[in-house]
Amino acid sequence: MQPPSTRATVKRNAKRAQYDAGVIKDILAAQQICHVAFVEHGEPRLIPTLYYCDDEYLYLHGNRQSALLKHMAAGGEVCISVMLVDGYVIARSGFNCSMNYRSVSIFGKGEAVTDESHREALDQFVAVLVPGHEQAVREPTAQELAATAVVRIRLAEMAAKVRDGDPGDDEQDKASDVWAGVIPVSLQVGEPQPSADLRADIALPEYLQRFKG
Amino acid sequence: MQPPSTRATVKRNAKRAQYDAGVIKDILAAQQICHVAFVEHGEPRLIPTLYYCDDEYLYLHGNRQSALLKHMAAGGEVCISVMLVDGYVIARSGFNCSMNYRSVSIFGKGEAVTDESHREALDQFVAVLVPGHEQAVREPTAQELAATAVVRIRLAEMAAKVRDGDPGDDEQDKASDVWAGVIPVSLQVGEPQPSADLRADIALPEYLQRFKG
Repeated sequence: MQPPSTRATVKRNAKRAQYDAGVIKDILAAQQICHVAFVEHGEPRLIPTLYYCDDEYLYLHGNRQSALLKHMAAGGEVCISVMLVDGYVIARSGFNCSMNYRSVSIFGKGEAVTDESHREALDQFVAVLVPGHEQAVREPTAQELAATAVVRIRLAEMAAKVRDGDPGDDEQDKASDVWAGVIPVSLQVGEPQPSADLRADIALPEYLQRFKG
Repeated sequence: MQPPSTRATVKRNAKRAQYDAGVIKDILAAQQICHVAFVEHGEPRLIPTLYYCDDEYLYLHGNRQSALLKHMAAGGEVCISVMLVDGYVIARSGFNCSMNYRSVSIFGKGEAVTDESHREALDQFVAVLVPGHEQAVREPTAQELAATAVVRIRLAEMAAKVRDGDPGDDEQDKASDVWAGVIPVSLQVGEPQPSADLRADIALPEYLQRFKG
């Protein structure tokens, strides 16, 4: 696969680059928080935020007054990063110590989501946290719908960078006495904690049972 | 505490802002990966990378040819974000669903680390992955030292944003039948996996024992 543009071409450690859309979408499906960079008054700005993807777009939402949401709704340029850490790579030299990770960079212009898909998108932001809960919550009010902007970016100009496996030690270091290997790291989801004000007769619903320890 | 500047002032959900340096440094000490935004040819660029902090600075390193490292070494502006997700906040309305998180934003100009602290910084990038391993690895070669740039940003113009605790449901929603609460999320570190080429007589060193299950 070829990179889609110069700016989306991985320059450092290019052997770790992947441009296959399937690989990229699998990484996007494994996270929920992205970072979004944009330029304001010539300076870099950076916001971590929840996202979800469909086949064509990555969606963001937020307060309609947010500088990022306004920038993207007006078609402004952004650079989005999604990052998952999979392990600490412990090599025989400091130089070869590293991390195992999967990351995606997406470049492009924002666009506002204003038609009937605005409402559907808001449900998806609930579903991406806990699938099923979007069916349980009450209907949004007109005020809530009006306060929340949804924007998106096309999944077109993007690249993944992935490192996995053992440390890549220099040949002459492999005889050394230093321990080498990988310490795995992963996001762990714990047991649901009921809200202090939850009515005592409300049991954990079916769609949350899978989070039980 | 007052925000240090307009751009470092939390605008959305300002009640979640924290400007106390102690709070901010505790968050910085709990992560290892930051995102760094900068402007290149008027466009936003964004790089996830390892960092460590001392009392005054946040340090980054990388290939001397990296666009980000060159930009920061030349005193260029960056915006840095550190983000930890602590839980999914499951409310009775979609609008009040959220995440528990701790995040920090840092604004400022980069500077090169070129004196004797360059070498010391490289040790710290090993120590931040696995404390103790920096004592075990072999000395860096002159070539490795020359290939790796270190830059830093002063911990001065920064803000934290923190959400914790139960969902903040509207009063009129609290009688509803919908389950509400928090699903905890955390980074889990697993058991060290020896490299396939590790000599069989090398045991797990003392400083890695704490990662054992």
